Amino acid sequence: MGNQLFIYNTLSRKKEAFKPLVEGRVGLYVCGPTVYSDSHLGHARPYITFDLLYRYLTFQGNKVRYVRNITDVGHLEDEVEGAGEDRITKKARIEQLEPMEVVQKYMNSFHRNMENLNILPPSIEPRASGHILEQQEMVQQILDNGFAYETNGSVYFDVEKYNQKHKYGILSGRNLDDIKTNTRELDGQSEKKNSFDFALWKKASPEHIMRWPSKWSDGFPGWHLECSVMSTKYLGEHFDIHGGGMDLTFPHHECEIAQNTACSGSGAVRYWMHNNMITINGQKMARSLGNFITLKELFTGKHELLYQAYSPMTIRFFILQAHYRSTIDFSNEALQASEKGLERLMAAMKTLGELKASDSSTVEVAPIMEKCFAAINDDLNSPIAIAHLFDGVKMINSIKAGSEKISPADLDELKEFYQTFVFDILGLKDEEMPVTGNNQTLDGAMELLISLRKDAKANKDWATADKIRDELNAIGIELKDTKDGVEWSLK
Amino acid sequence: MGNQLFIYNTLSRKKEAFKPLVEGRVGLYVCGPTVYSDSHLGHARPYITFDLLYRYLTFQGNKVRYVRNITDVGHLEDEVEGAGEDRITKKARIEQLEPMEVVQKYMNSFHRNMENLNILPPSIEPRASGHILEQQEMVQQILDNGFAYETNGSVYFDVEKYNQKHKYGILSGRNLDDIKTNTRELDGQSEKKNSFDFALWKKASPEHIMRWPSKWSDGFPGWHLECSVMSTKYLGEHFDIHGGGMDLTFPHHECEIAQNTACSGSGAVRYWMHNNMITINGQKMARSLGNFITLKELFTGKHELLYQAYSPMTIRFFILQAHYRSTIDFSNEALQASEKGLERLMAAMKTLGELKASDSSTVEVAPIMEKCFAAINDDLNSPIAIAHLFDGVKMINSIKAGSEKISPADLDELKEFYQTFVFDILGLKDEEMPVTGNNQTLDGAMELLISLRKDAKANKDWATADKIRDELNAIGIELKDTKDGVEWSLK
Repeated sequence: MGNQLFIYNTLSRKKEAFKPLVEGRVGLYVCGPTVYSDSHLGHARPYITFDLLYRYLTFQGNKVRYVRNITDVGHLEDEVEGAGEDRITKKARIEQLEPMEVVQKYMNSFHRNMENLNILPPSIEPRASGHILEQQEMVQQILDNGFAYETNGSVYFDVEKYNQKHKYGILSGRNLDDIKTNTRELDGQSEKKNSFDFALWKKASPEHIMRWPSKWSDGFPGWHLECSVMSTKYLGEHFDIHGGGMDLTFPHHECEIAQNTACSGSGAVRYWMHNNMITINGQKMARSLGNFITLKELFTGKHELLYQAYSPMTIRFFILQAHYRSTIDFSNEALQASEKGLERLMAAMKTLGELKASDSSTVEVAPIMEKCFAAINDDLNSPIAIAHLFDGVKMINSIKAGSEKISPADLDELKEFYQTFVFDILGLKDEEMPVTGNNQTLDGAMELLISLRKDAKANKDWATADKIRDELNAIGIELKDTKDGVEWSLK
Repeated sequence: MGNQLFIYNTLSRKKEAFKPLVEGRVGLYVCGPTVYSDSHLGHARPYITFDLLYRYLTFQGNKVRYVRNITDVGHLEDEVEGAGEDRITKKARIEQLEPMEVVQKYMNSFHRNMENLNILPPSIEPRASGHILEQQEMVQQILDNGFAYETNGSVYFDVEKYNQKHKYGILSGRNLDDIKTNTRELDGQSEKKNSFDFALWKKASPEHIMRWPSKWSDGFPGWHLECSVMSTKYLGEHFDIHGGGMDLTFPHHECEIAQNTACSGSGAVRYWMHNNMITINGQKMARSLGNFITLKELFTGKHELLYQAYSPMTIRFFILQAHYRSTIDFSNEALQASEKGLERLMAAMKTLGELKASDSSTVEVAPIMEKCFAAINDDLNSPIAIAHLFDGVKMINSIKAGSEKISPADLDELKEFYQTFVFDILGLKDEEMPVTGNNQTLDGAMELLISLRKDAKANKDWATADKIRDELNAIGIELKDTKDGVEWSLK
């Protein structure tokens, strides 16, 4: 495969070589969070998955414009049931808050979670409420092109009419006849020609706080619309990759394709990528199912299902240890195994930094590096890449133990590879706290140890003096005799 | 003064008792940053000033809705010269970026700076680009009311006409005749009736990237408009406090008053508060003057004018050590003095935690507390409050030294007061790194010390054993003999 990245395109149902529309530049759009409560483990997965993609594409030398939206309006609580109540407004009313206060609170908490997980911020993070005018323009365009109709101040997408000219269901592999058979006609949907039509613009009920004026009514945009609008606004009418959770394939992404096609005659996206779900006892973890564990609960261990706290990097490693298109089942045992694995990897990173080179190598460095890259190039197969990294860990430990040797050139290459692959591409980091001169407690302890060593030397107690130096050396602290006395530093 | 907060109202030019419109609820709006470059020291001042206000109002038991905007469009580079180029667009063109990418980058960096400075996030952080529709509505309202006119697709506020009915200049104490005398007629302003008229909506030139459709033209809103719109959208037609830097008084805040009055017949704001500038060699520190030091440079010490790095809390303390309506002149000496002062205060906070109570007090605790609150109630006089805190520091150190005594009740009160006042109200924090079990280096050093003490005891070297225990005690580490051996903990 060489350096060619292959990715699984949900649209073609096969792995395809990834070629950006403009060489060296990649447009990437990922569906962001609806910010009306704390993010849970299931939410971490798409953002870690596409962070890996973003990091890898950037590592390959591409200039990536990564757009990830914030849904702060228009995501209907239960669209199928026609309740038509905006999720955020509902929560706000319960909490007696201005909806934007709820949005701000959970957006801040989302950003903290992302930072904890070492997920790079996207290049642009547009908010749905910040693009009402643009959404109104697209509604008008779809109306002008004849693929939508207005009823009582709301505008709906005419799926049947669209299907006559284009095919509705190409992403999820459904066809309209099946959809018809499986959709019940429900109360409160009498405004629609067909129950599977979806809202582009909804007239606001009197108690609805989040509303904007439009030529159709004071109302708000439909949920599907924002992604069609914001992706093309910042990435162009056609762009490279659209990502999101598998549960968004239908109807959300299907509707996006229909909206963009109804506007411009063709879909906007070349590669559709979908990550699989995190399950708990075999069931998808979801806010709506009430079976979720928030990221904050995971980081603090405060949830009845948790045996302990799991650090952000443990969560990240846990998610990377499965291929993004497989399900992951949550369990304490699996998380504890990830924690141990990560510790082993980080210990090896330190060992690698301390290895001494020999004249020549008895090990082969290149195959490990090649296999790791081959795995990532094969549709971001991070678990395989991590398995190869652990082959390298064994090698590193053998060199440390003296049963293998490594040449200076090989050692340099191996060091650089691990730094790049583990930190820059997989986005892991060492969670051990950095120790700086600020840390007065360690400073104090070190002063005492240096003074005890001086005492020991004065008493000709060489055993104790050596013990102090050697043990400090083992924990990574070096003592140096200078003209101003003994100084210490972290190696 | 008791518990009544007095604040200086720029509008009335005197200190007034602060009474919110609705008891127990406060609406606060502060002009946020224009996100097209890194924030500098001068930018830290308003956000620290109004963070103090936000914290204090909240401490008083108010439910505060704090709105601080992000200016991501419409701030003209040099309005007087009529260049009409959007600051962000200009930077974007130089960097060959999408303007929103520039916005995102510097918004992220601003948020990091705010977090470093321990500035609480506002309740709502609206973006100008996210409220185009609302701004268009206000432009139309002002047009309908006869206080604006359209020329070539742009809409301008008619200052002369407004001044006939209302008074223009009430905040800054100017009158229109003076303004007329001092305003030159410049090229490129022929669209305006008068050079002091200001844009509500600007038609975009062909190369202008950030643009939105409107009934007047494809264009963008004037800078002054966003604050009039976003403050009233989230806080209501009338609200309590509007804050910002003194340099915004004219024209920005004057124009806000005119816009709101032109819309609704009266201004929106009850109390206008303005912080003074930070100067450097006697001149205002400003992006436009090129004499600024960014916060990042201060935190890292990487700037030719800096002798050293200054921690975020040193910067915060430095700013709080001046009254917000006085200028502060930047100097390394002043910052170093702040650093020392903060260290002394934090050391006293630790000492306070370790004080032992006596049967009775030889000190008086109440006056210090009362004076600190009186100072804050007197228009947020933080330097006076800090001076009283240092009187308390002397008292704390005298108690520690044994020359004064404190009763258990007084000690509890003093501890709670310092915690609340220093951490919750002034928003300072201890920057010494927390040491946790994660810190393997300290763990290792402690293991070694415990082992050395065991050796010393085995050798009946009591002097060394005691030295280890006592010195550790002095740096805040306690050794405990347990059935599993010696354990250590931070006091």
